[in-house]
Amino acid sequence: MSASTEPEAVGTTDGRAASISSIAAEAGVSIPTVSKVLNGRPDVAADTRARVESVIERHRYQRRRARQSSRPALIDLVFHEMHSAWSTEIIRGVEQAAAAERAAVVLSELGGAHRPRQEWFDDLLTRRPLGVILVLAELDEGQRHQLATRNIPFVVVDTAGEQPPGVPVVGSANWAGGLAATRHLLGLGHRRIAVISGPTTMLCSRARVDGFRSALDAEGVVVEPDFVRYGNFFVDGGYAHGLALLDRPDRPTAIFAGSDFQALGVMRAARELGLSIPGDLSIVGYDDVQVTEWIGPPLTTVRQPLREMATTAAQMVFTLARGERPRNERIDLATELVVRQSTAPPKW
Amino acid sequence: MSASTEPEAVGTTDGRAASISSIAAEAGVSIPTVSKVLNGRPDVAADTRARVESVIERHRYQRRRARQSSRPALIDLVFHEMHSAWSTEIIRGVEQAAAAERAAVVLSELGGAHRPRQEWFDDLLTRRPLGVILVLAELDEGQRHQLATRNIPFVVVDTAGEQPPGVPVVGSANWAGGLAATRHLLGLGHRRIAVISGPTTMLCSRARVDGFRSALDAEGVVVEPDFVRYGNFFVDGGYAHGLALLDRPDRPTAIFAGSDFQALGVMRAARELGLSIPGDLSIVGYDDVQVTEWIGPPLTTVRQPLREMATTAAQMVFTLARGERPRNERIDLATELVVRQSTAPPKW
Repeated sequence: MSASTEPEAVGTTDGRAASISSIAAEAGVSIPTVSKVLNGRPDVAADTRARVESVIERHRYQRRRARQSSRPALIDLVFHEMHSAWSTEIIRGVEQAAAAERAAVVLSELGGAHRPRQEWFDDLLTRRPLGVILVLAELDEGQRHQLATRNIPFVVVDTAGEQPPGVPVVGSANWAGGLAATRHLLGLGHRRIAVISGPTTMLCSRARVDGFRSALDAEGVVVEPDFVRYGNFFVDGGYAHGLALLDRPDRPTAIFAGSDFQALGVMRAARELGLSIPGDLSIVGYDDVQVTEWIGPPLTTVRQPLREMATTAAQMVFTLARGERPRNERIDLATELVVRQSTAPPKW
Repeated sequence: MSASTEPEAVGTTDGRAASISSIAAEAGVSIPTVSKVLNGRPDVAADTRARVESVIERHRYQRRRARQSSRPALIDLVFHEMHSAWSTEIIRGVEQAAAAERAAVVLSELGGAHRPRQEWFDDLLTRRPLGVILVLAELDEGQRHQLATRNIPFVVVDTAGEQPPGVPVVGSANWAGGLAATRHLLGLGHRRIAVISGPTTMLCSRARVDGFRSALDAEGVVVEPDFVRYGNFFVDGGYAHGLALLDRPDRPTAIFAGSDFQALGVMRAARELGLSIPGDLSIVGYDDVQVTEWIGPPLTTVRQPLREMATTAAQMVFTLARGERPRNERIDLATELVVRQSTAPPKW
């Protein structure tokens, strides 16, 4: 993403010494060095060149912003579909990063469609936002190209782990999350542990199950095939699989529920079967959405840092909009086990 | 809210007969009648004048929109503070109305401040949205004036019932909600009924308590003073007052909890005291946020139509932005009792 299509004083060699000297000062190099970079001369060290170019790009960006000051600075946040507990965290993370840049956040929900309609996309181009953040939403090849030709960068907040190479992505460490949840249960003494993950079609579901398997393998615990299940990340999925798992004589003593909503479903199933938590059954969720604090007992879960993921994605968009390259274009933020009261050593 | 500060062909008397005749046709009046209205002549019936003026305003709006077509159509949605279950409903309601007008929704959270900072407000003016929707947020006199001079209308989604006269508001029927909740409990046979409302400083809290009192009075049930309590609408408020109410020998057999979150707090208190719901205690919430579906037992509550309130407010903004007058500028949408499984006849 570069601003090279725009005519700029700095970036040409028209002799604006004042600008060149300020760039030299800011980059900590001599004026001749800046001239060399501007003229494309090869006798400049690679890291010096990179530093000078980054300062030039920043100046371009600031002037472009100043020139556009009659236009509002916007950043578009696009949800495939909003889920309350979840999307509020993401919105807040984006708001925070946008406020630091005095940009306003335009929010759209595609109403369950993964790819935006062309009419919506045309309106987006009319708005000319600084950039776009997509949450579980995708652009097709043509739409990506249209953004690129208009210097509108985009970044995907990807909780599913599904983005093609070359797309800037902020995700989270799903495999490590599954590992941590299962190690916690093993550490408490559980051996009969089941997992209910999300849909098999989502890579994040598979990554969490693989983390689960690795933790068991490392302890030499054999995985019972029927104890590995794939739900839908919602309460009803947790409830159905929870009933199936708990209503058998050799039921598990612990369930890694794959999402907090599925954990709520498992809790309901346990309640109906007269099982107490954590006395008869330990449960670990995934996500750490706020609702888990209110349910009794408070849920042990794997925190997915949704707000930080959103802030990171927005910062990446602003960096790209300045014509700079972010340090990394594909980042997984760490997940973290949060131990509360839904887990305890097994009774038998 | 009028477009009179802008120079417009129709609206002056420069003799654009084509426009005048089309206005006459659209309003179903004669061309001389349109001329009379444009010239401010008194000999036009009031309703005819209103009809002609409304058509004129609509034409102005459409031309203004056409002229601005290179600018994005925006509507600003401003939250005092987002609460997950709650704000998602409002966002969706606004999105729905905005999509119908091909306007994009700019979302802001004031981070707990009830009045926007001037820097944020300046950026809003730069964006020139079609209008502004405020949720539990307020504008000061100067900010209201600045919006008015720029023909930017605003409407308040008011769940608190606090707006001064003259401000367009969409609220909900708090008193009727309190009445319905309490009548339901009386109908089940309860007589020892407590209420935990929100802060005394919020009119909606008082309205719900007044509805509660009226229902009891109508049945000749004396209100025990200690059974009327004011919390904070959050889980901890329900928990603290719930413990205080339930840990006494003459405890209530039913609690109207004032909000769903407070109902969750009361449930936790009951659980800790070994009381079953609805066997030992009936609970009614308020709001009908999604989370109540997942908790066991499912909560009887008063549904506050947040999504419809937001859609109505957005439609009101678009009407005002067209220079038309909405049918009503202060609307309370009806609340509705939703009976689930947290209420039952008292055991004693």
